Amino acid sequence: MPLKDRIPVAVLGATGSVGQRMVALLEGHPWFRLGSVTASERSAGRTFQEAASWVLPTPIPEEVAGMQVRATGPELEERLLFSALDASVAGSVETEYAQRGHVVVSNARNHRMDPDVPLLVPEVNPEQQALVARQSFGGAAIITNPNCSTIGMTLALAPLHRAFGVERVNVVTLQAISGAGIPGVSSLQIIDNIIPYISREEEKLETEPLKILGELADGLVAPAPLTVSAQCNRVPVVDGHTLCISVELGRAVSAEAIIDAWDSFRGEPHALGLPSAPSRPVVYVDEPDQPQPRMHRDLGNGMAVAVGRLRPCPLLGWKFVTTSHNTVRGAAGGALLCAELAVARRAVEGLRDFEGGASAS
Amino acid sequence: MPLKDRIPVAVLGATGSVGQRMVALLEGHPWFRLGSVTASERSAGRTFQEAASWVLPTPIPEEVAGMQVRATGPELEERLLFSALDASVAGSVETEYAQRGHVVVSNARNHRMDPDVPLLVPEVNPEQQALVARQSFGGAAIITNPNCSTIGMTLALAPLHRAFGVERVNVVTLQAISGAGIPGVSSLQIIDNIIPYISREEEKLETEPLKILGELADGLVAPAPLTVSAQCNRVPVVDGHTLCISVELGRAVSAEAIIDAWDSFRGEPHALGLPSAPSRPVVYVDEPDQPQPRMHRDLGNGMAVAVGRLRPCPLLGWKFVTTSHNTVRGAAGGALLCAELAVARRAVEGLRDFEGGASAS
Amino acid sequence: MPLKDRIPVAVLGATGSVGQRMVALLEGHPWFRLGSVTASERSAGRTFQEAASWVLPTPIPEEVAGMQVRATGPELEERLLFSALDASVAGSVETEYAQRGHVVVSNARNHRMDPDVPLLVPEVNPEQQALVARQSFGGAAIITNPNCSTIGMTLALAPLHRAFGVERVNVVTLQAISGAGIPGVSSLQIIDNIIPYISREEEKLETEPLKILGELADGLVAPAPLTVSAQCNRVPVVDGHTLCISVELGRAVSAEAIIDAWDSFRGEPHALGLPSAPSRPVVYVDEPDQPQPRMHRDLGNGMAVAVGRLRPCPLLGWKFVTTSHNTVRGAAGGALLCAELAVARRAVEGLRDFEGGASAS
Amino acid sequence: MPLKDRIPVAVLGATGSVGQRMVALLEGHPWFRLGSVTASERSAGRTFQEAASWVLPTPIPEEVAGMQVRATGPELEERLLFSALDASVAGSVETEYAQRGHVVVSNARNHRMDPDVPLLVPEVNPEQQALVARQSFGGAAIITNPNCSTIGMTLALAPLHRAFGVERVNVVTLQAISGAGIPGVSSLQIIDNIIPYISREEEKLETEPLKILGELADGLVAPAPLTVSAQCNRVPVVDGHTLCISVELGRAVSAEAIIDAWDSFRGEPHALGLPSAPSRPVVYVDEPDQPQPRMHRDLGNGMAVAVGRLRPCPLLGWKFVTTSHNTVRGAAGGALLCAELAVARRAVEGLRDFEGGASAS
Repeated sequence: MPLKDRIPVAVLGATGSVGQRMVALLEGHPWFRLGSVTASERSAGRTFQEAASWVLPTPIPEEVAGMQVRATGPELEERLLFSALDASVAGSVETEYAQRGHVVVSNARNHRMDPDVPLLVPEVNPEQQALVARQSFGGAAIITNPNCSTIGMTLALAPLHRAFGVERVNVVTLQAISGAGIPGVSSLQIIDNIIPYISREEEKLETEPLKILGELADGLVAPAPLTVSAQCNRVPVVDGHTLCISVELGRAVSAEAIIDAWDSFRGEPHALGLPSAPSRPVVYVDEPDQPQPRMHRDLGNGMAVAVGRLRPCPLLGWKFVTTSHNTVRGAAGGALLCAELAVARRAVEGLRDFEGGASAS
Repeated sequence: MPLKDRIPVAVLGATGSVGQRMVALLEGHPWFRLGSVTASERSAGRTFQEAASWVLPTPIPEEVAGMQVRATGPELEERLLFSALDASVAGSVETEYAQRGHVVVSNARNHRMDPDVPLLVPEVNPEQQALVARQSFGGAAIITNPNCSTIGMTLALAPLHRAFGVERVNVVTLQAISGAGIPGVSSLQIIDNIIPYISREEEKLETEPLKILGELADGLVAPAPLTVSAQCNRVPVVDGHTLCISVELGRAVSAEAIIDAWDSFRGEPHALGLPSAPSRPVVYVDEPDQPQPRMHRDLGNGMAVAVGRLRPCPLLGWKFVTTSHNTVRGAAGGALLCAELAVARRAVEGLRDFEGGASAS
Repeated sequence: MPLKDRIPVAVLGATGSVGQRMVALLEGHPWFRLGSVTASERSAGRTFQEAASWVLPTPIPEEVAGMQVRATGPELEERLLFSALDASVAGSVETEYAQRGHVVVSNARNHRMDPDVPLLVPEVNPEQQALVARQSFGGAAIITNPNCSTIGMTLALAPLHRAFGVERVNVVTLQAISGAGIPGVSSLQIIDNIIPYISREEEKLETEPLKILGELADGLVAPAPLTVSAQCNRVPVVDGHTLCISVELGRAVSAEAIIDAWDSFRGEPHALGLPSAPSRPVVYVDEPDQPQPRMHRDLGNGMAVAVGRLRPCPLLGWKFVTTSHNTVRGAAGGALLCAELAVARRAVEGLRDFEGGASAS
Repeated sequence: MPLKDRIPVAVLGATGSVGQRMVALLEGHPWFRLGSVTASERSAGRTFQEAASWVLPTPIPEEVAGMQVRATGPELEERLLFSALDASVAGSVETEYAQRGHVVVSNARNHRMDPDVPLLVPEVNPEQQALVARQSFGGAAIITNPNCSTIGMTLALAPLHRAFGVERVNVVTLQAISGAGIPGVSSLQIIDNIIPYISREEEKLETEPLKILGELADGLVAPAPLTVSAQCNRVPVVDGHTLCISVELGRAVSAEAIIDAWDSFRGEPHALGLPSAPSRPVVYVDEPDQPQPRMHRDLGNGMAVAVGRLRPCPLLGWKFVTTSHNTVRGAAGGALLCAELAVARRAVEGLRDFEGGASAS
């Protein structure tokens, strides 16, 4: 699609770790073009290059480097906004933008558990997008993306939940430093070290999956009857969250059946041909010492989850390991996929008369 | 005690990671003096400094640097041998030395689960030392030290098991690279990465604690009726294993009762005044983001286990985190404590008429 | 070009760090297709996936994963061979293959300083390819690629040498672990550490640039009258060598003139449209704290050198910092570019009647 | 000496990286006892444990953990103050405390180059302590400690300068993250990376050694006629700065003579028996790949400099590598030694009638 026909979007909180990834993923996106970047008052007026302490391995996209950063809060022309705001400000700011008619796709935790806000993993619960109809923003809306660890875990659990039922889950995470933002974790605290704590993270992992795997009934989500126990650790890895998961399934199954459930899992993003949809959202890796974050975080352009080491668990039945890219699939890329889904399904009124889907890509 | 009166000992496999730590810990030991170091045929005849690719942060003890390395296998004068041999050779070599009259205290896995071999954590199951009476080596014996992760976990579980009973345990480990020896893990595989697999490690964690926490009856150990599920990971940390543990206890208890069980735990090594016994084997650290390996691995000269983050687990009841030094408490220091126990209790005949214990230190 | 028309090539020593990178870069190469991979006798007969302990962040190319590894030494059908062999065997093996009629493009140090062997950085000294005429292999030949640090330094020095003359150079390197191969540097030695020594590396940096920047006269290379002093360090970085360089130039120049010499530098690979040629081989980065290996190693698909921090040096006149990818530009990619140059210039007889160059790509 | 007789001291800026190290080194110091710790207004009133984000591998000294932090600026009872203040505030604050009668031993750069302020490396230029006589603070004084890299380099250069004259020096540093304080370097910027820039560091390395190695004449320091060129890099190492140095000496000497100059170097702190003086300030390590920061940073309790790899340099004559602990020898320990020197020499009036030196330790 010619650049002028692409949907203009803005990134709120663009100078942070997730914001930078969002900016990088929007470069050359076939449906969207980046119109504005915002940050705190302090950064407003500076060029993006000056304001952002760029940490990604690819250079700043040229057309964004010189873009003037705008303050978060005042009016923006773009109807579609990606929010990479810090949770300390995201709640009210996102609501205000929605009230002014914007569609906000957010990575922040603030609205995730609101009963009328979709918490989307597009391959897993696209139907929950319908929750926006309960929002009181006219044609505008707030759509949220789960926590960076939740996405990877939920993508791995969803095929099992559909096929066999998932009843109890124990998860211990080994999370990359990029999830903590910029400046985030001090190097003095994490080199040659582990920090066995991430603020609020365990709570998110124990609640968000229940909503995502829940059922939409009478316009509301009934949480899945699932118990999750989580322990979260920060480790000296740049990108890629690794999760050690044990699950109790609803019935006895073979390892082959489980692996087949993962490998055959697809979902609506793939069917719709969304530009950011990985060809296979879950990939089983059959090596004894994999998946590994450095090796698998870029699988499917960072949008797929690698699963491996499936074996019996004497407590819950089965255990396995997952790795996924925390700032791509787990944040910026996940939000992008949510927005693509909204466009393709015309689920959000007035986003514009856009011909998304396979034909457009 | 004057140097000449100290018990002469040898270290088998002294050039490896655990062997080096053993050599370092023996420097200035009040009861023992290092008489011989052995390594493979290839290293025999070279000085220890030449043969060992020394990786510890303290220099090679001066009196060992120039010591000539002997081949593992042929006769040694020292009656007490510490084995830091690789499991590929330890099994038969240790048996041969015991048959020739040596007392072998071993870090290798080979004999750990033999029914007549003590698998000792001296604070936890000193009475199991009595198993040596079933061995057929005359006054000689093989005594073993558990796996580096098992020791830390078992020290944290033992006070709970005594006080409340432990029925089910889930453990996910984040293990330091020094546990893999020299050269061990390639830097290309572990920098900016996690390896979610350590050969045979999960099996050890799922079986060894049952023996250690078991009961001695009729001269044999009845394993504790405990189920353990383990997932093991290698992380880019130099020293210090961190474990995320969930436990189901035998009865409902308060957090205070659990913490009190840890903090009040002592054991025989402390009572006997063994030189390597930490004043408190288990230390509860009451900070939200601790214990951490870099901060706590040297607690109690590397012989104590730091425990923290006790909180309810929706699946098993309680969860918490432990950190302990894998090559001190988890290997060389643990073996040293086993040997000190044997000496102090005169449990092993003929080790020599040595006045160990508090009076000697 | 259709796959069947591409020139078949083999990679010698394909399972090592450079060999793996070579295999990865050949995937989808427009002129070459990988026909065979070789390794030591021990690996022969196994699939590439089994034999290689793959460490790259992208997966093993599918068509190579199942390829049977052949032993290095016996006959190969492919005329063009890329040697990623260890220096301990490369010397004689490469000579033997050349004697049998192969064109060998080598990363090993063994033949680099032979007077009749080109030591090529294609942007810098493409004319030295003519040295092959002095070789006694008929139409076959040995062509070499410089050391991984030499390439980056020489690319940065060449524009200055052409424009102003370079007389004295001091260089201190901070080299990535991937340069040491697999298993290479033990993680126990390099995490939270520096190793201020790399075997033979300083010697290479002090001699190879003289040949590369030398002049071809009467069919031989007269070394450039240049003095280089090098200190080499291994640092805990996965990929990307950083060099701190001071230079004494032949005459007084301004910083602008130096930066302009770098930024305007192009060379024959670009003119010929070689597939692996970066559009700009040397890129000056105008930020106070750059270049950095993680940020710049992939510049120009890993084939460009980033230079920055140009400032006066009170001893030699100017100092600056360079970063380049050691296994791409510094090894596998550099060798590929040498081979592309040979094909495009038909410099090596009989490589085949191949229409290389811009028209073919 | 009984605790009550020890000289009470305060640490200004005690919660930072150097301040924490200062607090740790004062624990159990035979001459000093810590009376107060200060920090910014924001931390005042909290306990030290609450206010400090403790990063050292040893626990917070028990008697300091509960100490109430005072604001920096208001009156303090202790006459002797150690300043670990940030340079943004140190200049005026230190002057004010000196004006009020305190002896301030500072790690900050602000006053280092003031003509009447001693910049001390006690083994090298103890006589420069006499500069305090030119200060206008009555019996009070400001004494400074050099930059963390300067100290290591100057200790290595001083024996050569005395014996042979040092004329030109090129130095490239690989500096640990602890030198950047807390939070200091973001982990996202330094893991798997190098930052080839440290603000103002090169300037310090190029100027401070001239003052330290200078001669005291007519009550002023005449800088040594020395030219230094420095390039500074931050590397992913926790503690320990490594320096690659080339030197041009005043005359031709042998390697043996240089090594002997280092190994025989002692100085006044050792002669006076100062508690923090290392028995040998400079230790030559004769291994091809040493010194290394992890292995040598704790040499002499972190107060010695390890030197190694002496070899000819084709440009300047000789080159070698040094490693020293940047927050011990390079900051807190260095300041402590300066204070011990002042006490032992009674160089600063009224510090108190204290019997320092060998007899007191």
